[in-house]
Amino acid sequence: MPYQIARYPMDKVKRVSQPTIRIVSEIQQVREDENGYNRAVRGDFGPVVQRERSRFCAKYPLGAVLRGFGEKLAPLMEGQPAQQRAPIPASPEVLSQHIKRVGYFLRADMMGICRLPRYAVYSHDRRGAEVSLDHPNAIVIVIDQDYDTMHRSSGRDWISGSQSHLGYSFAAVTACMLSDYIRRLGYSARAHYARDYQVLIPPLLLWAGIGEHCRLGDSVLNPFLGARFKAAAVTTDMPLAPDQPIDFGLQSFCEQCGRCAEECPARAIPSGGKTLYNGREVWKLDEERCTRFRLTNQRGSSCGRCIKVCPWNKPEGRMHSVARFVARNAPILDRALVRMDSLMYPERETPAPWWFDLEERDGILSPPRVSGREWEEPDA
Amino acid sequence: MPYQIARYPMDKVKRVSQPTIRIVSEIQQVREDENGYNRAVRGDFGPVVQRERSRFCAKYPLGAVLRGFGEKLAPLMEGQPAQQRAPIPASPEVLSQHIKRVGYFLRADMMGICRLPRYAVYSHDRRGAEVSLDHPNAIVIVIDQDYDTMHRSSGRDWISGSQSHLGYSFAAVTACMLSDYIRRLGYSARAHYARDYQVLIPPLLLWAGIGEHCRLGDSVLNPFLGARFKAAAVTTDMPLAPDQPIDFGLQSFCEQCGRCAEECPARAIPSGGKTLYNGREVWKLDEERCTRFRLTNQRGSSCGRCIKVCPWNKPEGRMHSVARFVARNAPILDRALVRMDSLMYPERETPAPWWFDLEERDGILSPPRVSGREWEEPDA
Repeated sequence: MPYQIARYPMDKVKRVSQPTIRIVSEIQQVREDENGYNRAVRGDFGPVVQRERSRFCAKYPLGAVLRGFGEKLAPLMEGQPAQQRAPIPASPEVLSQHIKRVGYFLRADMMGICRLPRYAVYSHDRRGAEVSLDHPNAIVIVIDQDYDTMHRSSGRDWISGSQSHLGYSFAAVTACMLSDYIRRLGYSARAHYARDYQVLIPPLLLWAGIGEHCRLGDSVLNPFLGARFKAAAVTTDMPLAPDQPIDFGLQSFCEQCGRCAEECPARAIPSGGKTLYNGREVWKLDEERCTRFRLTNQRGSSCGRCIKVCPWNKPEGRMHSVARFVARNAPILDRALVRMDSLMYPERETPAPWWFDLEERDGILSPPRVSGREWEEPDA
Repeated sequence: MPYQIARYPMDKVKRVSQPTIRIVSEIQQVREDENGYNRAVRGDFGPVVQRERSRFCAKYPLGAVLRGFGEKLAPLMEGQPAQQRAPIPASPEVLSQHIKRVGYFLRADMMGICRLPRYAVYSHDRRGAEVSLDHPNAIVIVIDQDYDTMHRSSGRDWISGSQSHLGYSFAAVTACMLSDYIRRLGYSARAHYARDYQVLIPPLLLWAGIGEHCRLGDSVLNPFLGARFKAAAVTTDMPLAPDQPIDFGLQSFCEQCGRCAEECPARAIPSGGKTLYNGREVWKLDEERCTRFRLTNQRGSSCGRCIKVCPWNKPEGRMHSVARFVARNAPILDRALVRMDSLMYPERETPAPWWFDLEERDGILSPPRVSGREWEEPDA
């Protein structure tokens, strides 16, 4: 009786030697302290955004729980490897197979392995310190943000932030455990998760074959989860055999669809074509607008409206396997698929939420009070 | 499109007002410091068992990772509730539904709720301190120990301890998160997990309808997971509506089967009928023999041979639904089911392990060295 260990049949997805975006010139390293959240902390987006940044995680109680949990894992993130290597095979293939299986044992929803590209290492971390990381390999750990919750939510209401923190915190659990295990086997390893990254996650997802670059910009979309996941990584000097990037027809699909751009409340997602950015032809997110909306959303906690409305945000099921097959093999039908999706999943039929709408202010949970502007728009 | 939130259809299992074991007189509270592991720490089972107890978790690297992880969660176990209650419904039914759904969001495999029976609270904890706990309700969180790993293992080899720690640590993650969440809503809550219990878990599993008492003694068996799970609990003063115990025909089945007793390497599981113990008619495990074997097993780390060989240790699937139906409705066929199980799942067809056999000694991982006795038998 066969038993599926990995929940999703990623072994059935077409593999390619290069990611499906055009790389035009050398991609430069970036600074983590220059990303939207860290600029908000510094006050680059003004005092309102700065103030809202400080209560971003505590704003909703379940988000606060999940975020606080992640913080507790910091001591497990890095450490010295055992002085002596364990007597195990040194074959990269055997070790890759083993490490992925350990990741599934440790309750990852999806695993992938790649070489660590230089450009995926931050030049400076969120504190502005130079990053020195010479691990050749990266292991990525993917956690589903829960289809049913996404189905019941608008993607921009009170559960929104918790959906992200769910993915971040559970990916952190598995990443911290896995890095500890690799160190015990005598190899160097560091976990990278939402509390303290030294690497950018999206390029790793791309190279490890978890997904393709999509219209959401710096996100990567998976054929089974859509963008409804978060990931953490473990970098290591353990010899590993990399997976290959995947091609499931997404470049043509995102070109035809654009629903995320239509529905983005911050108008941060481009509705047009790709542009050249840091050596690659990509859809480029307006990071400032996206960050501002997530931090100052008055009618919810954070935002993942794009993840919610994406036609690839679906549960497991045979019908969706057919849709995936069509998207892969008949790009001419992409528009028809998008229209069919709107008919099959009308948003007016969203089932009732299971969470309570609550907002924390000065240590007290109250019914959310909506006042003033919907969000702190840059030029408003 | 319906979407199953809880992984297993426990709502389809017959509910009864009382657990399916006979309760003859008042059940007395017990001391945690008198259980097998704590007696081993004290040296009650001699110096060899005492020494092996101290390296029990560190003996296998993955077990060490999981156990060490659980330790890090201690600060999240208890705390002060928020001074002001959140403005949410006070209906026990609504809150029970909500809390279970939060548990599934936080990646529990199964959830249940019961009143906290007095006898399920330890009179004294593992340090010998008197326990004072007046929470009226208990929430149980169940984590599957991974069917595929169990399928590949003998149940008493090197991965054995890690399978237990997997369940303990992930149940602890969800329990700690859930208790933190309940405190933020303004109710008192404490998580109880393998690091520091104030309650006995098996009676809670029984009353919350997770399973029936089985031949393994102090364990509870679930119709979908068998005994292949670990659980943690959250006790609370939040008003909750208890679930009811279940009856899926296990008392007759265990009476007819007895495979766990035949296969137990420590001969700790009774092969005969139930006996009267602390007010209940139960199969009574020889806790000393079981503890000694798990601590001093020379050919592996810990032991869960009984969990492995139990005919209820099965993956999801239609054929097993039929077997469950037969066991429930035609106890006369119980023996036939057990025989059929031996034919369908012959142990000689066990697939290859995915783990490495390793043993930690003095900080170094080596191939396990088998020397001397198989285990520290009491009268050997």
